[in-house]
Amino acid sequence: MKIKEMSETEVIEMIRRKVKVKISNVKMGIGDDCAVLEHSKTEYLLAKTCTLVDNVHFSLEYFTPEQVGMKAVESAVSDIAAMGGRPDYCLAAIGIPHDFDSSFIDGLYGGMLSSASGYGISLIGGDVSSSPNFFISISMLGTVARKQLVTRSGARKGDMILCSGGLGGSAAGLGLLRKKAKGSSIMRHLEPKARHDLAQKLAKAGITSMTDISDGLAPEIRKLCASSGTGAVIYADKIPISSSTKNDAKKLGMNPLDIALYGGEDFELVFTAAKNKLDSLRKFGVKVIGKIVDKKNGIKLLDKNRLQALESGFDHFRSSLK
Amino acid sequence: MKIKEMSETEVIEMIRRKVKVKISNVKMGIGDDCAVLEHSKTEYLLAKTCTLVDNVHFSLEYFTPEQVGMKAVESAVSDIAAMGGRPDYCLAAIGIPHDFDSSFIDGLYGGMLSSASGYGISLIGGDVSSSPNFFISISMLGTVARKQLVTRSGARKGDMILCSGGLGGSAAGLGLLRKKAKGSSIMRHLEPKARHDLAQKLAKAGITSMTDISDGLAPEIRKLCASSGTGAVIYADKIPISSSTKNDAKKLGMNPLDIALYGGEDFELVFTAAKNKLDSLRKFGVKVIGKIVDKKNGIKLLDKNRLQALESGFDHFRSSLK
Repeated sequence: MKIKEMSETEVIEMIRRKVKVKISNVKMGIGDDCAVLEHSKTEYLLAKTCTLVDNVHFSLEYFTPEQVGMKAVESAVSDIAAMGGRPDYCLAAIGIPHDFDSSFIDGLYGGMLSSASGYGISLIGGDVSSSPNFFISISMLGTVARKQLVTRSGARKGDMILCSGGLGGSAAGLGLLRKKAKGSSIMRHLEPKARHDLAQKLAKAGITSMTDISDGLAPEIRKLCASSGTGAVIYADKIPISSSTKNDAKKLGMNPLDIALYGGEDFELVFTAAKNKLDSLRKFGVKVIGKIVDKKNGIKLLDKNRLQALESGFDHFRSSLK
Repeated sequence: MKIKEMSETEVIEMIRRKVKVKISNVKMGIGDDCAVLEHSKTEYLLAKTCTLVDNVHFSLEYFTPEQVGMKAVESAVSDIAAMGGRPDYCLAAIGIPHDFDSSFIDGLYGGMLSSASGYGISLIGGDVSSSPNFFISISMLGTVARKQLVTRSGARKGDMILCSGGLGGSAAGLGLLRKKAKGSSIMRHLEPKARHDLAQKLAKAGITSMTDISDGLAPEIRKLCASSGTGAVIYADKIPISSSTKNDAKKLGMNPLDIALYGGEDFELVFTAAKNKLDSLRKFGVKVIGKIVDKKNGIKLLDKNRLQALESGFDHFRSSLK
């Protein structure tokens, strides 16, 4: 079977089945936002790799080298944060066409360092290769207090599902860039920020599960439910979509709800919590968007009083964003 | 300046100048085989990223997917081993053209796991991206007892320079593959093995510096001397070159000494030790190939009683191996 006929989930599942981790000090291997390793009596070590390939995950037609460097770091920070962790160190592997100018490397590392220093992350190594097509792969190491570790698998029937902020902005921004149109969503695509500080507060407040929204709300909810062994109902009218995202979606003839559900790359957080935590969580500006239900009830979207299946959306193996 | 006009050393130095690590628990950042981090009272954490790009570092015309997976892991293990460390965990980021067959992923991960399991390494995560050109980037985490850490910077005037085994085999093998010729060196190129067990013994025996030979003996000696602040004399007639490498070099019309000095990718070890350690080290089958001298005497090759400058050799930014 050709890889393009497989979904990304299928590819990862194929690898996960092959890789059977037996070593006792790997608490979690493939299958959550990060790998979780034994580290000390009070902490786990977290490890994550995020790769951005030119014309697949972004395009140098729109992005400055600085923005690529920033997005690569923010994307890896977002995964560490989604497990309640603090990012500490990163390694950067880059592949770069040999006819690029050296100022590209200067800008790229400038962007990486600007994002990294904001979180207190040290860039400790990596490598630089020649490559016909530009890519960057960031490996991030972090730590999390044992009692503060939040996984995708802790959601329980009756928990509420919450979201940290507006969705769909990055996808609307990408749409505008492709059509050479203007709008404030563009910066959501070019310069997304990980919700690191909020994630720390949520993990301390005692939530049951969390993941970052890198692939769109719908696929992230599906992964969270699969890991937790639950179903879910998402309330379409509660999904936060900013007015600027709605405006930009309108310009593009796109349905704002669709891009919020399937757009991805907003790096907001989706998480679950017991009902009795809601009052203490609301002060963080987070919104209830649904409820965890029994697995047998499936994963549904409640839209205009109609309950429908929540589609997986955009999950095929991406060949081009251009 | 275009990147192709720069040497790899210049590119890395440009990045190193930009990245000023201040955090106190980074013992070593960019500039040795691995980054070295504080970990526990008795151990350091080692971290390394190695990237292989199709048609730059290898070619899928010659390599099976299994061999690429194995070489990627061996290459990262070699760097951890060269600091006296044990590899523990790895993350694999791959970029794969969408018209590849899924059996490619199966073979690639099979190769990675086969090498990894031999060293007791757990593959704990990574990511899979679509990419127009295939690449694989392995991030390896390891540990080393504090007193067993060996760097590139510990060589001192009067130390002897030793090498773990035959050089030039990988380069001869590549030459044969390009000319569609046959010879036993081919397997040195396709299936190199890291000298992990030997490196452990050497680190325990008390050597002063070490690095693995991934770029050829000459550039590795230059890096070791630059880090240690010394010069060196290499004895051309003492460099170990196997008879099969010599035979294969002859078929190709290549000078065996040249490919040993500049060929790279043999993953043997070059290291330095005080003279009084030589007797205890010789039992490991290692060979004395030179001597550390004062920096002001430079880095020289003693060939047929003539002392000449040791050229850097192949250090431009590689665009293609094909």
